[in-house]
Amino acid sequence: MINSVEKASVLIEALPYLQRFSGNTVVIKYGGNAMLNDELKKNVIQDIIFLKYAGIRPVVVHGGGPEITGMLKKLGKESSFVSGLRVTDAETVAIAEMVLVGKINSEIVKLLNFLGAKAVGLSGKDADLIIAAKHLAKVRENGQVKEVDIGFVGDVLKLNTSIVESLLDQGYIPVISPIGIGKDGATYNINADYVAGDLAAALGAEKLALITDVEGIYRDYKDKSTFVSTLSLAEAQEMIKTGGIDGGMIPKVEACVKALAAGVAKTHIIDGRNPHSLLLEIFTTEGIGTEVVKYRRYING
Amino acid sequence: MINSVEKASVLIEALPYLQRFSGNTVVIKYGGNAMLNDELKKNVIQDIIFLKYAGIRPVVVHGGGPEITGMLKKLGKESSFVSGLRVTDAETVAIAEMVLVGKINSEIVKLLNFLGAKAVGLSGKDADLIIAAKHLAKVRENGQVKEVDIGFVGDVLKLNTSIVESLLDQGYIPVISPIGIGKDGATYNINADYVAGDLAAALGAEKLALITDVEGIYRDYKDKSTFVSTLSLAEAQEMIKTGGIDGGMIPKVEACVKALAAGVAKTHIIDGRNPHSLLLEIFTTEGIGTEVVKYRRYING
Amino acid sequence: MINSVEKASVLIEALPYLQRFSGNTVVIKYGGNAMLNDELKKNVIQDIIFLKYAGIRPVVVHGGGPEITGMLKKLGKESSFVSGLRVTDAETVAIAEMVLVGKINSEIVKLLNFLGAKAVGLSGKDADLIIAAKHLAKVRENGQVKEVDIGFVGDVLKLNTSIVESLLDQGYIPVISPIGIGKDGATYNINADYVAGDLAAALGAEKLALITDVEGIYRDYKDKSTFVSTLSLAEAQEMIKTGGIDGGMIPKVEACVKALAAGVAKTHIIDGRNPHSLLLEIFTTEGIGTEVVKYRRYING
Amino acid sequence: MINSVEKASVLIEALPYLQRFSGNTVVIKYGGNAMLNDELKKNVIQDIIFLKYAGIRPVVVHGGGPEITGMLKKLGKESSFVSGLRVTDAETVAIAEMVLVGKINSEIVKLLNFLGAKAVGLSGKDADLIIAAKHLAKVRENGQVKEVDIGFVGDVLKLNTSIVESLLDQGYIPVISPIGIGKDGATYNINADYVAGDLAAALGAEKLALITDVEGIYRDYKDKSTFVSTLSLAEAQEMIKTGGIDGGMIPKVEACVKALAAGVAKTHIIDGRNPHSLLLEIFTTEGIGTEVVKYRRYING
Amino acid sequence: MINSVEKASVLIEALPYLQRFSGNTVVIKYGGNAMLNDELKKNVIQDIIFLKYAGIRPVVVHGGGPEITGMLKKLGKESSFVSGLRVTDAETVAIAEMVLVGKINSEIVKLLNFLGAKAVGLSGKDADLIIAAKHLAKVRENGQVKEVDIGFVGDVLKLNTSIVESLLDQGYIPVISPIGIGKDGATYNINADYVAGDLAAALGAEKLALITDVEGIYRDYKDKSTFVSTLSLAEAQEMIKTGGIDGGMIPKVEACVKALAAGVAKTHIIDGRNPHSLLLEIFTTEGIGTEVVKYRRYING
Amino acid sequence: MINSVEKASVLIEALPYLQRFSGNTVVIKYGGNAMLNDELKKNVIQDIIFLKYAGIRPVVVHGGGPEITGMLKKLGKESSFVSGLRVTDAETVAIAEMVLVGKINSEIVKLLNFLGAKAVGLSGKDADLIIAAKHLAKVRENGQVKEVDIGFVGDVLKLNTSIVESLLDQGYIPVISPIGIGKDGATYNINADYVAGDLAAALGAEKLALITDVEGIYRDYKDKSTFVSTLSLAEAQEMIKTGGIDGGMIPKVEACVKALAAGVAKTHIIDGRNPHSLLLEIFTTEGIGTEVVKYRRYING
Repeated sequence: MINSVEKASVLIEALPYLQRFSGNTVVIKYGGNAMLNDELKKNVIQDIIFLKYAGIRPVVVHGGGPEITGMLKKLGKESSFVSGLRVTDAETVAIAEMVLVGKINSEIVKLLNFLGAKAVGLSGKDADLIIAAKHLAKVRENGQVKEVDIGFVGDVLKLNTSIVESLLDQGYIPVISPIGIGKDGATYNINADYVAGDLAAALGAEKLALITDVEGIYRDYKDKSTFVSTLSLAEAQEMIKTGGIDGGMIPKVEACVKALAAGVAKTHIIDGRNPHSLLLEIFTTEGIGTEVVKYRRYING
Repeated sequence: MINSVEKASVLIEALPYLQRFSGNTVVIKYGGNAMLNDELKKNVIQDIIFLKYAGIRPVVVHGGGPEITGMLKKLGKESSFVSGLRVTDAETVAIAEMVLVGKINSEIVKLLNFLGAKAVGLSGKDADLIIAAKHLAKVRENGQVKEVDIGFVGDVLKLNTSIVESLLDQGYIPVISPIGIGKDGATYNINADYVAGDLAAALGAEKLALITDVEGIYRDYKDKSTFVSTLSLAEAQEMIKTGGIDGGMIPKVEACVKALAAGVAKTHIIDGRNPHSLLLEIFTTEGIGTEVVKYRRYING
Repeated sequence: MINSVEKASVLIEALPYLQRFSGNTVVIKYGGNAMLNDELKKNVIQDIIFLKYAGIRPVVVHGGGPEITGMLKKLGKESSFVSGLRVTDAETVAIAEMVLVGKINSEIVKLLNFLGAKAVGLSGKDADLIIAAKHLAKVRENGQVKEVDIGFVGDVLKLNTSIVESLLDQGYIPVISPIGIGKDGATYNINADYVAGDLAAALGAEKLALITDVEGIYRDYKDKSTFVSTLSLAEAQEMIKTGGIDGGMIPKVEACVKALAAGVAKTHIIDGRNPHSLLLEIFTTEGIGTEVVKYRRYING
Repeated sequence: MINSVEKASVLIEALPYLQRFSGNTVVIKYGGNAMLNDELKKNVIQDIIFLKYAGIRPVVVHGGGPEITGMLKKLGKESSFVSGLRVTDAETVAIAEMVLVGKINSEIVKLLNFLGAKAVGLSGKDADLIIAAKHLAKVRENGQVKEVDIGFVGDVLKLNTSIVESLLDQGYIPVISPIGIGKDGATYNINADYVAGDLAAALGAEKLALITDVEGIYRDYKDKSTFVSTLSLAEAQEMIKTGGIDGGMIPKVEACVKALAAGVAKTHIIDGRNPHSLLLEIFTTEGIGTEVVKYRRYING
Repeated sequence: MINSVEKASVLIEALPYLQRFSGNTVVIKYGGNAMLNDELKKNVIQDIIFLKYAGIRPVVVHGGGPEITGMLKKLGKESSFVSGLRVTDAETVAIAEMVLVGKINSEIVKLLNFLGAKAVGLSGKDADLIIAAKHLAKVRENGQVKEVDIGFVGDVLKLNTSIVESLLDQGYIPVISPIGIGKDGATYNINADYVAGDLAAALGAEKLALITDVEGIYRDYKDKSTFVSTLSLAEAQEMIKTGGIDGGMIPKVEACVKALAAGVAKTHIIDGRNPHSLLLEIFTTEGIGTEVVKYRRYING
Repeated sequence: MINSVEKASVLIEALPYLQRFSGNTVVIKYGGNAMLNDELKKNVIQDIIFLKYAGIRPVVVHGGGPEITGMLKKLGKESSFVSGLRVTDAETVAIAEMVLVGKINSEIVKLLNFLGAKAVGLSGKDADLIIAAKHLAKVRENGQVKEVDIGFVGDVLKLNTSIVESLLDQGYIPVISPIGIGKDGATYNINADYVAGDLAAALGAEKLALITDVEGIYRDYKDKSTFVSTLSLAEAQEMIKTGGIDGGMIPKVEACVKALAAGVAKTHIIDGRNPHSLLLEIFTTEGIGTEVVKYRRYING
């Protein structure tokens, strides 16, 4: 049982954060376990609504790999992979789009509205939000790096954010599927971390928060004792170069790097397996996950 | 070859319609063959963009029955029907939503943007646009009408149109999937004709245009010589009551009736199999399909 | 020590209140010990700033009896009292105004700004905010009630709230001294509880919170065991009539009654001697002080 | 008889032009036969209204030489000419102003409003729209060019376009008489082609269309076979210098040159003797008259 | 020589009028000698600009009978009269329009702008400002009143004041010629007093000031000693009925009556032969001309 | 007695000033006898209201030395002085604030509102309007200048004028007490002349008018025959340097110099002992007091 004095202390602890973030944009990449476990899902939705009512402008970008895989399986569609990326033919990208836009996005929008927000789902096709270009997989062959066409996997080429900003200005929470539209009219599936990082940059966000399934970043990802709570931009770039970062973590760190370079104040990799980690990260002094910042003040790794 | 004088005459024929519709809202139900044939599809998209640039505020509601059926088949999901309506369990409505929102809506939005408009897709879940209630199928049994629960098939309960109006005010073309959200959070598939009729009513539209695959309405639908080009509200209601209208046409006529009752000036059932029938209906004196109006000036059935 | 899980639970407990009060006006009467004790003062100031950053529009009305008495004493000015009200000649009201406007109001404004808000002080003379009329003291003499002129003590005659609303719309916190201006140009000192109640009514506030030095209301104010946490409008009126309420509490309860009658949803008498009682009352389920509401749902007295 | 398919093809031919000109300003110099023949007059008025309802912002500048000459004759006022320009004393310019502002402008405004637009007439005196300076006629005498004062004939010195822009923003069609006001308060009659060109430049118009009584420009104006449908800015300047352009055509070409130099995208000299030539020029692929553009893509002279 | 103390007293005398008229609309009928004499003309123009800079929204309606008569004479056009009204054929009304719009209006606009205002001229055709109907002259024949068609003399049928209000809102002074447009497209010449009265009514003006060439109203217009400085609405109506008012004064008094009935606070008939009579009437306590008011406070006739 | 012609001439004399100052900001330092004498007080208040209704945006800064001294005396608080500045301990500055904000400011606001304006009082603490720093007194000791701490006497460090501009935009007259807030939260008393000069600079005022108790500036302040009606910026700076200006006049001249340097067009030192000197200075050609301007056109000292 928490008593009145304690309750008051928690609320007052939140006050400087309320003041600092008031009116600012925060981009949240929502993915991993926090999308699959019903209780965690409810927690994240509540956290986003809390942000909204605390005067913040939250923008949600979601992933959905496991559900796409599930649907491909149901439809008897087999996938091959190149350098960890799914070879994505026209049928596959159509299925990915259907699942992301027509299932996952719809579900997040529904939950946000059900708990009292006003959310609107967007895909990158809406108002040409995400213009994409084909992403070529890098394959190391005979000591050389070759680029391989793996189909409709895309990179963000350009963001037309006016639809997002107009929805934010009117009090809506935009929920965005990482589907891009090519200049040739083709549909592209894009890594949601990159979309979130680029959006944070383009919107001049105050913060980028990537919700994932790990505790954060380790100096040596094979050694849990090397956990880092704060990483500078330079250190992050160094770790990418030297391969100190685990494969799945690379797009996350690269998204942080891109956002920071564009002026976003802070980026965070948050462990979505802990309830309300987003809320705690933003409104308390608790150390949650790893923050990547332009310059590090002190070392606590 | 059309010469200059003829071209000028066509443009000038359009002038009174340009003047009359300027600044008004037109709701278009887009369905049938015009969604499947690539050439017709392009025609409809061009027509909608023409409306937009002629100062009209077009709102698109789309259907998608055949594509839903196709996907259910691919997923090995069999359907049973009651009174012509598909029995729709939770899995079925999820697939319907995925196809409508993640495939058909996305495709229409993409085409509109590709040809120079700014379109944004919406489902009834976005900003709680379409609040739905369970629709009970009416079954005649032993001379009595019984209501039967057929799952997640919905009726429009309430429309929260502010997201649609705000998008229109900013110059976007809203494209809407006929998916509703129940007060209990359940997803409902709704007949797109009804959604279009209710939207036309709620938005105070000037016109409702239902694009379909038939020439229009017949006094006796088994006798093609009884084609009607203009029908009054009263006649339409009478024909519904007496069963003079074909099953598939009933929701269309009911949508017209509802829109007219709410003050929409004119409603149209347009044959989408003819190229640019929407454009011709709005900007020329050509008689296209059947118009249902509050009061009929003269009889031409 | 409060752990992460507990912190999250406190914040999430606040969410429904954030949602409910978002964009609404709350009028706070700030008086009593919470104005004299430096720690309590800082707490109240933080609470008000918290409200502001939580999307609420706080309006502060302050009292200042003890400080006025102190200054009168310093200036060698003696006071007489009629029915508990100070006989207030022109010199006295000028001193009261000087202390309220030039000392107490200035101090509150300074503290709010120092902790990060944008506050602006107002007296009832600014933009003719508080139009006052002379208040006549009621004296019981020989079994009859006579009205006695006690000088420049005023009642609220009319409120011109546009300056308050315009400051609120621009994000300022208005801090108001209970000084009124007569139609004849005379200055009147008004009970701050009444000013707060009338302002809550005139502004269509969602809540009126009166910070005072007692726990709340007792059914029998001589018996502490008769504490009431919820009182209905009817009960409050009855208690005033039957004399069940202590003298000092009467203006507070009357202010609540007036605000409720004008449509304010809830009014509260809060014990300012407990730290952050305002914050706890608004953002938690804690039972703080006595609430006076239009209709009581259940009895817990 | 034009059938449905042909009608649709004409409308769709107009679509790219609707898209391109939407929201842009088009300045139309209205003069010549199209002002005198009632049928042609109605055509031009309809064309301008069509532009308006197609989302364009039309601005009309009119001439009126023949009507001024007629009124001078009626009043028994004889004119002398220097280098083709009328010597204009104070009485003459007053008559010119009366005819232009009180007769021709009024008539155009009336017709536009009668056919459903909202037009407002302006002279250069309204809100000091056209500040003028005296134009000196150039006379060749003994092989030298001398400047001769011919009275109240003016050049555009400065345009105060805010009244025009404000009327456009509110949906009015401004109709402008080519009367200027000198810094000394004197009235000046200005060539309407120059006023139109300068206005197109000052308003950042997309197009300048000069309606006249000839087919267009000829490389050698004495040889009809040398008709030019597209002329580059450089070619136009060269033709003026070398005298390849007919006297009456010089101000038109100079107006085009000035507008193009200021960033107007295209200028057109249109044959007003053909019905709806303005409409055809803007909304069809028909080759109407001569266009003068910054750079010519191909030669078709 | 006026000394400082006197100057200050005149300015302070104006203060209550500045306060009372601030932001209000005043309609001024400008006619008579004050239009012909250059010094008086300059005075009136200065007075109007003074009003504008004193925070008033002046609207000017002008007459021009003498100048029309002059031009008709120059053009050898003879006029006949019925009941004091000129029989006005199409040619005559065209000349009247030319003189009013193209000469007198232009001149007033020029002078206002020259002295530092921003004026815009309007005729009743601009934006369909004055919709007119044919006025039938009343002729007494054999003891009966017959209506006689005298051509294009009009009555105000309807005023579309939005162009006037929009110009006022943007700080322009509208100057209006009393030319009306019939529903059939015909041009009508209307008495400027009636136009001014109707405009004052339609605009909700605070005051109507009619500048004329007489001292004001006399109870018996043949006896100068019966001058009236204040007349009530009822008295004015009575005087019209009993023929106590001179022919030329009738439209002025009727204009006042109509404006007062529609809520205009005060109407004035001002002697334009005295310099700055408009300014003195509005900003001083001087008794200028005759005021016609709803109710008279005291009698001074 | 002033006759009509004279009245008109005074009003017309004001016209160019009305035109020039329309929409501009004028900062008025209100001090000296004009604050103590009831008749002069009323005059100044009327003058300020006249400015307001003449389309000017007046801002009032007031002093109050004598009243502060009076209150200190009443409270038995003795003062010492260093270089003419009062040594101001915490108690003294609190009393100064009380008198300035709670008495003098309140009184001015009341009078302005009573005579028909809408005034709002501000202290430098409201919305952190005046950020102050400690002013160190300069003391000449043994031929050297030493800086001495004399307590809570302040200099303007920074002005946050948005509250002033927002009140002006909404038609309020801001009345400002010269109390500043230190970055440490301490209260500072500041010379009102400096506050007025800095405000004029920060607001981009057109004029700064300092109402005082002397005729103006003398070249030699001991010789009344050396009165100067116009002083250039350079001359003023020279006179300060050479000690040609009387002690009490120094802050006034320095305020003028600072305002002029920041782009204020004209500054004035006005003799408040003459009735309506502010009005006469602004709206007539009368020579009132001394104007300090950037460059002097002619010498009249």
